[in-house]
Amino acid sequence: MRFIVADWGTTRFRAYLVENETVLDTVSSDEGVSVLEAGQHRNVFLDRCGHWLRAEPDAPVLLVGMVGSREGWVVAPYASCPAGPAEIAKAMIPVDLSDGRQGHIVPGLFCEPAPGAADVMRGEETLALGSGVDDGIVCAAGTHPKWIVMKGGRIERFATSMTGEMYALLREHSMIGRPATEPEDPRGFDLGLDAAERNNPDKGQPAGLLHLLFEARAAVVSGRMETNLLGPYLSGLLTGDEVNSALAQSPRPSKVTILADAQRAELYIRALARHGVAAEAKTSRNALIAGLFRIVRHVRSL
Amino acid sequence: MRFIVADWGTTRFRAYLVENETVLDTVSSDEGVSVLEAGQHRNVFLDRCGHWLRAEPDAPVLLVGMVGSREGWVVAPYASCPAGPAEIAKAMIPVDLSDGRQGHIVPGLFCEPAPGAADVMRGEETLALGSGVDDGIVCAAGTHPKWIVMKGGRIERFATSMTGEMYALLREHSMIGRPATEPEDPRGFDLGLDAAERNNPDKGQPAGLLHLLFEARAAVVSGRMETNLLGPYLSGLLTGDEVNSALAQSPRPSKVTILADAQRAELYIRALARHGVAAEAKTSRNALIAGLFRIVRHVRSL
Repeated sequence: MRFIVADWGTTRFRAYLVENETVLDTVSSDEGVSVLEAGQHRNVFLDRCGHWLRAEPDAPVLLVGMVGSREGWVVAPYASCPAGPAEIAKAMIPVDLSDGRQGHIVPGLFCEPAPGAADVMRGEETLALGSGVDDGIVCAAGTHPKWIVMKGGRIERFATSMTGEMYALLREHSMIGRPATEPEDPRGFDLGLDAAERNNPDKGQPAGLLHLLFEARAAVVSGRMETNLLGPYLSGLLTGDEVNSALAQSPRPSKVTILADAQRAELYIRALARHGVAAEAKTSRNALIAGLFRIVRHVRSL
Repeated sequence: MRFIVADWGTTRFRAYLVENETVLDTVSSDEGVSVLEAGQHRNVFLDRCGHWLRAEPDAPVLLVGMVGSREGWVVAPYASCPAGPAEIAKAMIPVDLSDGRQGHIVPGLFCEPAPGAADVMRGEETLALGSGVDDGIVCAAGTHPKWIVMKGGRIERFATSMTGEMYALLREHSMIGRPATEPEDPRGFDLGLDAAERNNPDKGQPAGLLHLLFEARAAVVSGRMETNLLGPYLSGLLTGDEVNSALAQSPRPSKVTILADAQRAELYIRALARHGVAAEAKTSRNALIAGLFRIVRHVRSL
């Protein structure tokens, strides 16, 4: 089965011509949704992918990512957890590609972590469906990493952590992170994991992330930490704290599947090892294509 | 007993002529240490306080705050916990005021919250000594609030939280806080305290601060939270999380003494009430003068 997909995010446009789970052709540009005005999306898509549309007149077209947000082409309202490929396909929103052909925007997912509380994702639901995990925990890394609980091949629930954005805030704008110097000493990451263990709820009297962050400054001003350790230290502390909380939400898994590049995955593998949890890394692109393949098989029945 | 004190911080210079615990006269300016160059401090002090030095030739002179930091007049190395007025007085660093007269810079305090870890304060040790609490917990509010454990009239240990700086980072620089609108709806604060309860280690499966912060964004983008609640919500979440951690470090106190202005103290009072802990608010200036009075009585014996 051939289909056309656009992974259309905030800063990048990437499209693939796919046969089953094999990418046959690729185009990309920097026409992310953040640089487009309302009304421009169709023309961008036709400019980049029109040749595929003509060559594959019957191929379904799926669009995924921030293209379905308020800043995107058309708002694709969040579907609710639990959701599998069938529910997500049913909640897709059509867009007119001209000549009577339609594309389908994959919706994001909403879940309610506690009564009245909210969590959302847009794009990572597709990665999770393509992760190869039917029952277990998937971590989709990124600026806002998502910890996704899979059950029976569907997304049961998930929790987002603001880890990556917090690291950038601390490094660029805070008294805590500004003294950091480069070249970095990567040993700081494990020191940060050590500190995060002091906020592990399993170990009693958690010190609190807001306190542990200040300790990093205190260690620098009191001469106990070299400033080239500080950046990796903050990364380790935040990653370790993310993992502490993620693992506290479920019975301890034996393994977590990480969707990330090799460098980022390695950091999670080290953080999870502190908890005696194994990790397997997969690439996000493969998961995206596999997830879309699971969704697209429901398109003909729409 | 008359003495002269300068509360010399990053952005402000404030000086007092004191008799016991009563302020007789006050001067202040915006000559904080951050706007001064090395070598300027003595002249600033003499310009502002020279008339008191001449009128009170025997009055001890104490300087407290960032004036003793690397950015200040002379570095006053941190003294170590536990420390009371005698230990702090002994660790003061003299500065030459001309004509053979000396001032004494009050050192900050260092403590080791865990083996190899560090916490520091500079100025709040004096507030704690003047808080009227000999045994109990004092919270000195501010950008980096300090939770200080007093035992037998001495500072046993303390923990700093980066709450205020974190709030400013989130409001000014993050995707989480930027959508906040004004005028604020103060009910958001209690909603934030509700969320912080989900990270209370006493309640099992703590959700994690990095996740709860992202929930604020998810609530806004999914239409579940009005943007005028967001600022107070973040304040409540951070304050609640600070209080969760502070109370987890010791046997539950029946009361905490808050050193803060009335508006800020009210927020802590509400956060502590969630834990069944009473709070008493005192003003920082009174605590500062009382603390310096306890320290200055050791000057003659130096």
